[in-house]
Amino acid sequence: MVESVRPSAGCGRVPVKRVAGDRLEVTADVFADGHDRVAAALRVKHEGWGRWREVPMEPLGNDRWAARVELDALGRWRYVVRGWVDRFATWRDELERRVAGGQDVKVELLVGAQLVDEAAANAPQAVAQRLRVRAERLLSAGRSTDPADLGGALDEELASVMAIHGVRPHPCESPELELWVEPLLARFSAWYELFPRSLGAPDEHGTLRDVEAELPRIAEMGFDILYLPPVHPIGRTARKGRNNTEAAEPGDVGSPWAIGAAEGGHQAVLPELGTLDDVSCLASACREHGIELALDLAFQCSPDHPWVTEHPTWFRHRPDGSIRYAENPPKRYQDIYPLDFESEDWDELWNGLLGVVRFWIERGVTVFRVDNPHTKPFAFWEWMIGEIKRERPDVVFLSEAFTRPRVMERLAKIGFTQSYTYFAWRTAKWELIQYLTELTQTEVAEYMRPSFWPNTPDILTEQLQIGTRATFAARLVLAATMTASYGIYGPAFELMERRPLRAGSEEYLDSEKYQLRDWAAGPDGTLAPLITSVNRARRDHPALQRNDTLRFHSVDNDMLIAYSKSDPDAGDTVLVVVNLDPNYTQSGWIDLDVDALGIDPSSPIQLVDLLGGDTYIWSGARNYVELRPSDCPAHVFHLRRYLRTEHDFEYFA
Amino acid sequence: MVESVRPSAGCGRVPVKRVAGDRLEVTADVFADGHDRVAAALRVKHEGWGRWREVPMEPLGNDRWAARVELDALGRWRYVVRGWVDRFATWRDELERRVAGGQDVKVELLVGAQLVDEAAANAPQAVAQRLRVRAERLLSAGRSTDPADLGGALDEELASVMAIHGVRPHPCESPELELWVEPLLARFSAWYELFPRSLGAPDEHGTLRDVEAELPRIAEMGFDILYLPPVHPIGRTARKGRNNTEAAEPGDVGSPWAIGAAEGGHQAVLPELGTLDDVSCLASACREHGIELALDLAFQCSPDHPWVTEHPTWFRHRPDGSIRYAENPPKRYQDIYPLDFESEDWDELWNGLLGVVRFWIERGVTVFRVDNPHTKPFAFWEWMIGEIKRERPDVVFLSEAFTRPRVMERLAKIGFTQSYTYFAWRTAKWELIQYLTELTQTEVAEYMRPSFWPNTPDILTEQLQIGTRATFAARLVLAATMTASYGIYGPAFELMERRPLRAGSEEYLDSEKYQLRDWAAGPDGTLAPLITSVNRARRDHPALQRNDTLRFHSVDNDMLIAYSKSDPDAGDTVLVVVNLDPNYTQSGWIDLDVDALGIDPSSPIQLVDLLGGDTYIWSGARNYVELRPSDCPAHVFHLRRYLRTEHDFEYFA
Repeated sequence: MVESVRPSAGCGRVPVKRVAGDRLEVTADVFADGHDRVAAALRVKHEGWGRWREVPMEPLGNDRWAARVELDALGRWRYVVRGWVDRFATWRDELERRVAGGQDVKVELLVGAQLVDEAAANAPQAVAQRLRVRAERLLSAGRSTDPADLGGALDEELASVMAIHGVRPHPCESPELELWVEPLLARFSAWYELFPRSLGAPDEHGTLRDVEAELPRIAEMGFDILYLPPVHPIGRTARKGRNNTEAAEPGDVGSPWAIGAAEGGHQAVLPELGTLDDVSCLASACREHGIELALDLAFQCSPDHPWVTEHPTWFRHRPDGSIRYAENPPKRYQDIYPLDFESEDWDELWNGLLGVVRFWIERGVTVFRVDNPHTKPFAFWEWMIGEIKRERPDVVFLSEAFTRPRVMERLAKIGFTQSYTYFAWRTAKWELIQYLTELTQTEVAEYMRPSFWPNTPDILTEQLQIGTRATFAARLVLAATMTASYGIYGPAFELMERRPLRAGSEEYLDSEKYQLRDWAAGPDGTLAPLITSVNRARRDHPALQRNDTLRFHSVDNDMLIAYSKSDPDAGDTVLVVVNLDPNYTQSGWIDLDVDALGIDPSSPIQLVDLLGGDTYIWSGARNYVELRPSDCPAHVFHLRRYLRTEHDFEYFA
Repeated sequence: MVESVRPSAGCGRVPVKRVAGDRLEVTADVFADGHDRVAAALRVKHEGWGRWREVPMEPLGNDRWAARVELDALGRWRYVVRGWVDRFATWRDELERRVAGGQDVKVELLVGAQLVDEAAANAPQAVAQRLRVRAERLLSAGRSTDPADLGGALDEELASVMAIHGVRPHPCESPELELWVEPLLARFSAWYELFPRSLGAPDEHGTLRDVEAELPRIAEMGFDILYLPPVHPIGRTARKGRNNTEAAEPGDVGSPWAIGAAEGGHQAVLPELGTLDDVSCLASACREHGIELALDLAFQCSPDHPWVTEHPTWFRHRPDGSIRYAENPPKRYQDIYPLDFESEDWDELWNGLLGVVRFWIERGVTVFRVDNPHTKPFAFWEWMIGEIKRERPDVVFLSEAFTRPRVMERLAKIGFTQSYTYFAWRTAKWELIQYLTELTQTEVAEYMRPSFWPNTPDILTEQLQIGTRATFAARLVLAATMTASYGIYGPAFELMERRPLRAGSEEYLDSEKYQLRDWAAGPDGTLAPLITSVNRARRDHPALQRNDTLRFHSVDNDMLIAYSKSDPDAGDTVLVVVNLDPNYTQSGWIDLDVDALGIDPSSPIQLVDLLGGDTYIWSGARNYVELRPSDCPAHVFHLRRYLRTEHDFEYFA
């Protein structure tokens, strides 16, 4: 029997995700009835290989087996675990015990000769020849009268050849499991979102060229991805005015998500921003700064989109012949026409949308933030992402779905690379621990890569609205260190913008979604130096580039949260402590989970704060922490273990 | 999407088990992309039905749905969950909101008319007629100029007809799951094991007739199943002597598990015990006492078994032509020939063994204790039990496998009704809690029904060897109240026999496996009165007849263990407290999990001890307990809740 293969998700029906360079560890329960010994192998195949590779599995005890394989190629892999009864090993094991017990084993040697002969019959010629010689030796030993002549039955060499070439009766295979290997950026990324149109001189519409000028600053802060809201022509019909008012005033720029105008649709660029070539240039310029350019895939149209006249069947019509605009009754969004993914011409529409993605990939864009994917069919995304990934396994899709948990999980299961989360609304210690435990320690972690955003142009949480500089700082550190991917709606977060449209709303006042903004630092200054420190810590420390090793540590103060991440291969461990109270100094005693950290509580550890640079020495599991919101509300400690040297000087590594 | 259907085991590949009269509650995640409303139904089919039954599911929130079905027939059931987009409900919901928002809904009424018309096209004639009338009403309302005329669009009646007959686009079904419904005895049973041959007059071989004479006593003690070791002729070749010595003395009776002699094999009765008819008579007599007779299925042979000559191919041969006897090198068991389930004549052998089971079922035996099933192929058991269950779904098979966890679980997965467990060796509080949590609160509970045996003829644990009367009493209460099925090797347990063959051995001295025993009470007397009380509590309290509601309660003393079981339908709750220390009085404070018990900590509860009869009144969650091993080391409390009456007298129910 082969059972409980790990990793797996959705009972093996959901591909698990890893990144290039990961080592995949596969475990499984492999066992048989009776007392025979079993053997097991992990079989793996990359989509580009002609045949399967086999890696022997090692027993871990209690019928659990394990093997590891290096994931050295992007794309789809498949893996299965195969188990079988190892007749030769069983025979050899019993023979050893018979010999030790002083029994006559002559007849058993004849049995062994048969096993070796059977193996020879199926082995490649060179091996078969050697095996036949060994079978002969066993046979003659079995017939000899010398009780000490075992015919080499217990030789290690024979055992290892038989382990590979022995006949494998009753082989049993797990279902075939699928694995997607993606670039490191899929797991580890810091996103920076901005509206290019606000980058112009005062009262002038910014351009993609203006974005290029910002790149050194964004790169200096340590971001990996620059994400721009839709860059396409914006509809004029029913255009929304400033602060989402019903009627735009002359000169109002409209929402970039109302895509399509006379100038073109999803494959065009708003003339005020620049040209198609400007997008390609910006993508190249980004890459020179170690940044990937991300565009927005918002599959919806303004009433002025060319598709409305070119492809009327791509939209839903009402019995009176009018096209259905977006609605959430009684609310109406007359500036948006949803696409009808179930229209009679659905295949033409789906291919058209696939074409849009290919179009931008050809222009150098490999990262996409997908707008509201949960309002389009799961089947479409599964197909579209599958098609793109076959051609370009390095492409990253971030799912912008803020909806029910099962729907968000399903989008991740069908191929989205990263997912927005509920992080913005998880503020208390208990709920952060509960949510992170679900995201990192359950099956969800196999297919869903959370991206933590403390704000977006749509989300200015109440916590930020009523918060202080310390609130923004704490939320930044939490987002950037709890999960390996995070992002900020950049200028607003850097400058701690927190004025809501009105009380009870999560919309920004004077939102950039509907107007240009002239970003300038206020009395709180800027968080840029902290952001830079945090991103540097993320880049310097492999522990912060993964989620699976996240562990929480107990602190006797509900306003202080403590957690660690480690990368055993790199020998890297980071411990983060955050004061969740933006107003008051909080202190408490932390009980380190020394087993999870792999530290010896009887030796001191050195903690270097990667934000402030201060150094502390801690002893044992229980230590004191105190954080003042007026300074920095968080420690991001690099843990250095004490190494005893021959002279017993203190030395930390 | 339909996901995560519960109950399920092994990703839906393992049948889940229930007993007749249970109500099956099925839950599943059912959801769709977009904002459309979904609907879901549970579909069930007993193997004897021609078609599927459909039960509508109700939403529990967070995309989880539930439905219940009464399991009113023994045998195999299948069930699936089906989900679909409910277009009419979506339309109706939006229409309500449009109307509430004061919108013109004329065009929407035309949309509704279309939906009702489509439903009519697929509905049975009578319904179709009514639907067409409703569609007409909607159509004319849509065309009328009266804004208040909704054409009955929001009628509850229309909604309920459309819920059943509306067209169901994009239906989605879970994989088909399997469920075995077995008799209550499968879940709730008290086993009593005895060797009939010891029941004769002093130095005389007991008979099956002697067993009949014991039945009133066994029934009085409250047992449900009487299990006899193999009743077949016993081999003479290499027969083991008393205390498992190599050579039997003349007159030694041999081990009943060395099956087969000149007098016959698995379908014969040892002449000293009686005849085939005596087995049938005993089975009938048992049933008159409310007891089922259980026989032993030990599929192995003595060298004298008729099959050895009739079917030599059913045994494994060595290259020198001799038949392989049982071995665990260097140990040899020359009195036992294992059957070769992989022989060339395997199908003949398998059918022969199936015939053995059918043979005894025809003679009135419906319960079997299966000896060492893990040493025979899983495939054989799955096939054999499947064949029997198709004919007789009431038959019970108890798996006597004391082996590795995955193997024991697999035997349960492939059809064994009950399983022996590691209970005999789980003695400390922490390990009992850990083991019971695994057995009752994880997926294992869906397919494996544990049977707790404090002793067997093969297992006299060290704990019992060094124990006192209180040890036996405590182990009895634990076995009988932690799981709904338990058993004892009767005479030895009743009389607290605890002399081992030798120090370090779990074998009994003068074991009944090799000789007759004259059972007589020693200085410790008998546990029969306690056994009688415990079994009466089990029969009177439905809470003790199930495992799923087991919950542990914290006690601030590691020598005291406390747990409860409840049956919400019967309004029955039992709380058990056991002193695990056989030597000293132990006391402590118990913290009741009042939520699990469903009690109001602000009202007193009355506790009636079903063993001693004493009554206590407790208030609040924290209460004091003290147990003296010299009395009874356990409380089995029936919890009675305080009911406030109109005159506010105390009243408990």
